[in-house]
Amino acid sequence: MERSIITLTTDFGTKDGYVAVMKGVILNINPETLIVDISHEIPHHDIVEARYIVERTYGYFPEKTIHLAVVDPGVGGTRRPILIITERYMFIGPDNGIFGFVLHKERVQKIIELTNSKYFLGPISNTFHGRDIFAACAGYISLGLRPERLGPEIDSILQLPDEEPVIKDNGILGRIKHVDRFGNLISNIRKADLEKLMKKGSVEILVGNKVLRGIRDTYSSVSPGELLALIGSTDCLEIAVNMGNASDKLSLKRGDQIIVMLRDERIE
Amino acid sequence: MERSIITLTTDFGTKDGYVAVMKGVILNINPETLIVDISHEIPHHDIVEARYIVERTYGYFPEKTIHLAVVDPGVGGTRRPILIITERYMFIGPDNGIFGFVLHKERVQKIIELTNSKYFLGPISNTFHGRDIFAACAGYISLGLRPERLGPEIDSILQLPDEEPVIKDNGILGRIKHVDRFGNLISNIRKADLEKLMKKGSVEILVGNKVLRGIRDTYSSVSPGELLALIGSTDCLEIAVNMGNASDKLSLKRGDQIIVMLRDERIE
Amino acid sequence: MERSIITLTTDFGTKDGYVAVMKGVILNINPETLIVDISHEIPHHDIVEARYIVERTYGYFPEKTIHLAVVDPGVGGTRRPILIITERYMFIGPDNGIFGFVLHKERVQKIIELTNSKYFLGPISNTFHGRDIFAACAGYISLGLRPERLGPEIDSILQLPDEEPVIKDNGILGRIKHVDRFGNLISNIRKADLEKLMKKGSVEILVGNKVLRGIRDTYSSVSPGELLALIGSTDCLEIAVNMGNASDKLSLKRGDQIIVMLRDERIE
Repeated sequence: MERSIITLTTDFGTKDGYVAVMKGVILNINPETLIVDISHEIPHHDIVEARYIVERTYGYFPEKTIHLAVVDPGVGGTRRPILIITERYMFIGPDNGIFGFVLHKERVQKIIELTNSKYFLGPISNTFHGRDIFAACAGYISLGLRPERLGPEIDSILQLPDEEPVIKDNGILGRIKHVDRFGNLISNIRKADLEKLMKKGSVEILVGNKVLRGIRDTYSSVSPGELLALIGSTDCLEIAVNMGNASDKLSLKRGDQIIVMLRDERIE
Repeated sequence: MERSIITLTTDFGTKDGYVAVMKGVILNINPETLIVDISHEIPHHDIVEARYIVERTYGYFPEKTIHLAVVDPGVGGTRRPILIITERYMFIGPDNGIFGFVLHKERVQKIIELTNSKYFLGPISNTFHGRDIFAACAGYISLGLRPERLGPEIDSILQLPDEEPVIKDNGILGRIKHVDRFGNLISNIRKADLEKLMKKGSVEILVGNKVLRGIRDTYSSVSPGELLALIGSTDCLEIAVNMGNASDKLSLKRGDQIIVMLRDERIE
Repeated sequence: MERSIITLTTDFGTKDGYVAVMKGVILNINPETLIVDISHEIPHHDIVEARYIVERTYGYFPEKTIHLAVVDPGVGGTRRPILIITERYMFIGPDNGIFGFVLHKERVQKIIELTNSKYFLGPISNTFHGRDIFAACAGYISLGLRPERLGPEIDSILQLPDEEPVIKDNGILGRIKHVDRFGNLISNIRKADLEKLMKKGSVEILVGNKVLRGIRDTYSSVSPGELLALIGSTDCLEIAVNMGNASDKLSLKRGDQIIVMLRDERIE
């Protein structure tokens, strides 16, 4: 049998040993699984950020990888613990919107509500389902347990709003989706939409109180300290500073607006 | 042979490559071992915090796991390097109190002082026994080396004071044992003792300058921003703020007092 | 076949999932490889720091380990992606000086410029060669791909200046090479050179506005809070504070001067 892979995404940080506890639980059930950290530095309770990070990362892993994500402000309450089975991957975590993207990006085969306490680390707590439910169930699934054993099939999952860019004839109104460690501002404006617009003429980008002309190829195409717009590694429009921090320079954060428009035109 | 597991807990951080050096040393001796990080963010030289983190984490790992912990302000001095062999696990690190809990929680079979430099990464430094002694010896043990080869048996290990709660007829005087990433205040007051008290009547919790009534089930049982007391994932009384940070809100830290008492009574 | 090992050193941090993406790419190509993090907290674009960390770490890993390092301010520009094959290890990353030490420390067998896009994760981006080129090529190499398949052999790599200490009859003028998490100031003054000097008489160390007498054996040989000089775990002179932070105490940082001289003499 191939070695199974489980990825972990949480807001637990790495100082308290909470993630290690989850790894211990998984390894106790399946000592042969490979566990890979995606991020444990999701801001506390920030489901939208967790969704973004998992969405941008999961598809690089081998098929059959089990993606476990726990950012779980509603732990112990009424939100359901779920497992989503798709053609290529499985996703396990709380049903709070963290896996919203899965419905658009993967072929969903089945959604299971995790209710069978036989496969939990019991008695379960009200504060750490990452340990008691998600790690334990992921461990059993990685061993080959049939998902149906974990609970009943359900029809739908919770979706949180996910703002799409507004595409007009002469421009695109987008938003900053993510600010990375380097201070790069990654937008929701896709390369394909941008290229369509650029066929009509040259563009300028309005971001903060700045206007940038054109799309660059590389960070180093401008002088150190200068702002630029380019297509980033996620195939979306990104605002950066060569050798610097665009978020600091522009005082912008997630959710702020980025506008691309044909030069000398204004979006109405 | 089963794959052996070694866990690592240190105050080394992750920026300087010190932990990676230890992993390299282990893998050089036993390339098949699985190394799992518990925490490398123990505050510098904080043996008590390291003891807490290892104590709360180790038991989730499979039996035979080797738990290596290095918070070692006395490195190069007279403190002994030790290996504790228990029925279920092994513990390796400096004899400075970090493993004090082992004597109460596990059945100790043997304690070895690590003296056989044949199994060290020699010549050993005076500043990095995590690399030169503990990683190297853990590597050999994970290969199946008989622990007796590493040095003579010894009788006892150093114990640091570990304050127990004071349990009275009408209340419990406890302490904050740990403040986690979320700012949750985790006390040394155990669920069992609390439940015994609550059979006599309803309780209130005095913490900082606040009085909290009753024990809640979940974080979300109070409004966002509100304080609450609940039984946390370690089965101890925990003070939290729903969607917030109790440590910041109350300006409390490890060692501060938490008192539970029967309502309308005062502890004498 | 033995399990291959790939180490990772980057300035990507661990919050954004960039490192996890690289791991996914590697595991997709070779699910059996073992990936070990050296550091992902290299300061943004700090090639000199990355070079230091890899230099001090790589040699502890088993032979045949593939050391991948990506601190890459010139990504997408003209700097070459390279693979260095030495008798013991392989090194893969941008040709920007990060691997300068390899030429002095290892027996280089071959240097390859990575040009064969067949082994890239295409179409490659201009901003994330860690994913598109380095992780992908490292994955194929770990599978046993002949390095010649990845591109043409080249003659040399970029070297950045690396200041050596100035050794005089009566003293040594060195520099701080690294400040670690503990605030220890690690210099480029080697134990061997220091010992040669100390045969001539006792020494004092000038660092910041302080003069330290003699070389100590252990941190704890001075009182808590006191400065000391000792030979650190890299066999270089190190300035530390027992139970404290020398960098904070002296307000010193990488590049600052450390002078060792025979007592009552002055370097001319």
